[in-house]
Parts: sequence; structure tokens; C-alpha cells
Amino acid sequence: GEESERRGTITFVTGNKNKLLEVQRLISSDQGKSVPFDLTNAKLDLPELQGSPEEIAREKCKTAANLLQSAVMTEDTSLCFHALNGLPGAYIKWFLDGLGHDGLNKMLQGFDDNRAYAQTIIAFSPGPGKEVHLFDGRTEGRIVPPRGSLDFGWDPIFEPLEEECESGDIDKGNTYAEMTKDDKNKISHRSKSFEKFRHFLATSSGEILKGMNA
Amino acid sequence: GEESERRGTITFVTGNKNKLLEVQRLISSDQGKSVPFDLTNAKLDLPELQGSPEEIAREKCKTAANLLQSAVMTEDTSLCFHALNGLPGAYIKWFLDGLGHDGLNKMLQGFDDNRAYAQTIIAFSPGPGKEVHLFDGRTEGRIVPPRGSLDFGWDPIFEPLEEECESGDIDKGNTYAEMTKDDKNKISHRSKSFEKFRHFLATSSGEILKGMNA
Repeated sequence: GEESERRGTITFVTGNKNKLLEVQRLISSDQGKSVPFDLTNAKLDLPELQGSPEEIAREKCKTAANLLQSAVMTEDTSLCFHALNGLPGAYIKWFLDGLGHDGLNKMLQGFDDNRAYAQTIIAFSPGPGKEVHLFDGRTEGRIVPPRGSLDFGWDPIFEPLEEECESGDIDKGNTYAEMTKDDKNKISHRSKSFEKFRHFLATSSGEILKGMNA
Repeated sequence: GEESERRGTITFVTGNKNKLLEVQRLISSDQGKSVPFDLTNAKLDLPELQGSPEEIAREKCKTAANLLQSAVMTEDTSLCFHALNGLPGAYIKWFLDGLGHDGLNKMLQGFDDNRAYAQTIIAFSPGPGKEVHLFDGRTEGRIVPPRGSLDFGWDPIFEPLEEECESGDIDKGNTYAEMTKDDKNKISHRSKSFEKFRHFLATSSGEILKGMNA
């Protein structure tokens, strides 16, 4: 019918064209079915708020929907230490900049627990003033002395738990920075978040399209 | 002359009437001279931003001046650990809530350095779009296991350095929470910030009044 051919456009809040291309690919189809949404991008200079990862994601998405007057998605990553009750969380970039890999390890030395989870939250809103949906992807791991390529943020000090590696059928005991890109994608917090988002877009497309046009 | 009788009004961004009364008293006179500014207050629900204490203070003050369309002052406190390159800084409330006094001590256990400084930044702007002035008061100390009354935030784990106590002519070796209110006021980061602010208002009143009316 006509309904099945309707498509919607979502604006991804990023200034990075490569990220746009990657995410376009990530959400284009779900379990063999095409997902009826097109992705474009906009660079916004949004204020970075304090708060829990969930609060920050929600506020940012709301603000972006208001500014762009359109359906939007945002993506945010946190690194949450169990011993620190989830902190540094969304503040991880300040701690990585200020302390480096060694300092982040030292900060946990006084605790018996070096576990952490990496978290991506995708936030989606069908338009200004409308509900914000969160897609929370997490990978459990440990904070360890740096191993592997030092190119990408805290990847060298995050070693996913054995269970995570088993469930992705990849080698155990490597940090994110020691894994191939393919292996990392099989178990990463970010992949899990996008999987949830893609599934939502695919299975709720009728309702979402209605919300976008209401 | 006429000039000397002109007065200006500054809005202190707080919902706390006791704080208003206290700060009215703190800035009413400088070295025996009356300070020609009156203080009123307004409660604003401003977003809490991420950033350095200086950036956060500056942005908050700017935003308040725009919203209130008047001369404003804001006050913010941070606790900055030397070993963590100034962090948690403005995020200290999240860390205190998440980790408690013991957790904040444990976080430093892996480092050789338990020094920290307490910091209040008062930010003042004579009006919307105008320059923001910062008044940075700091007291150097150490993070220690909690001692004294547990009523007030991180006071029980902050022990000012001996030099700070000597300069204020008060007993050494106490945490903020173990001091009398008077003793704490003699050396506190907050007192230092208000001293600078008061002095600025007293010595630059002509220029400030001109700026407020421009």
C-alpha cells in the first residue's frame, strides 16, 4: 500500500561527514528489511551539560529538536567505573585529557574493583517538544594499563569481559585498542546502541512517521 | 559631589535568602568605606555546564545577565585535586554524591599527592553582553579521612595547609569541619573571593556604574 512507501528524514547532530556515512550504513536495513528513514546531518554547537549520561542525552536531543525543528538523533559516549558509582561517566573526556591512561588506572588503585562499562546512548526525538527515546548500549569490561594502538581515546585501557567476547565469538583478553575493527564492532557498546535504534526504526516506523508529521 | 552619591543594583543569582543577607553584609563596606552597590536576588534555573571552573563561571554569568537584563553576580565552588590535574573541579558535587568522603580519599590512594585547593569564583557582569569579571579565591589544603561535623559537604575531608592557617593566625591541623565558623572565614577560599570582589566594587565603582548605565 501507500503507507509502506512513505519515508522520513532524521537529522544526525554531527559535523563529521564520515560519521554520517557510517551511521547511514548502520541503520539502512534491519533483518533484511529496508528501514524507511533517510539520514542527513547538521553541526550544532550545543552546550555540554552536567548530569547523568541519560539526562545529558535527553536534554541535548530536546535542544537539538527545538533548534532544528525536525526529527533528530544524537550520540554520546560515557565510561563508567563501578567503584566510582558510574563516574567519570559523561565527564570521561575531561579525565582522559587531565590524567591520561596511567592516571585513570591510578585513580582506581585504592579500590578492589577495576570494572567499568562503556556506554553509548543514542537519543531520538521525532520533533520539537516530542518524546525523547533513548537507546542504551553497554559493554562490560575492566580498566587496565594501556595496550594496543594509542590512536583512539580510552580504547587502550578498556578490556571487555570474557563473557562479552564469548557472546561475540572473538578472542578474549584484548583491549578495544588491540582488537580488529570488525571484532570490536561485534561487541562494542556503540554497536549495541545502534542495533537497538535500528530495530526501533524498523519495527515502529509507522508510529514514528505519524509522530514526525503530527 | 553628585557622583559619589550614585548607587547601582546588582542581582545575585540565588534562591537562598540567607545567602543574600550574608553577601549583602560581606560587600557592604571595604576598608571603612561604604560600597555604593545594593544587592538583590533572583532564583534562576540555569543549566549546569561542563568545563573548567573559569569557563563555567563565565558562561553562567553571561547567561544570567542576558536573562535578567541587569548587572549580575554568580558564585561557584570547586574542589581541585593536584594529582588529578584540577579535577574533579566543578564536578565535585557529583563525586561527593557518588563516592562519599571515603571514596574521595580512596581515589587519591594510588598517587603520592593528596593536595587539593578549594576554589570559589565570583563572576560579575555589569549587564547583558558586557564583560564578565572573575574573582578567584583559593585555599590550599590536603584531602584527608573525614574529621569534624559531617553537616557540610566536603568540609570534613579538607584540611587547609599550615601556611594558610599561619596567615590567618588560627590553629593548624584542623579540617574545615573542625574549625569555628570565624576561623574558617579567616582563611576560606570563599572569603578570599569575596574580598577581591568587594575591593573591586569599592575601587572601581565609578567605572562600574558607568558600565551599568551604558
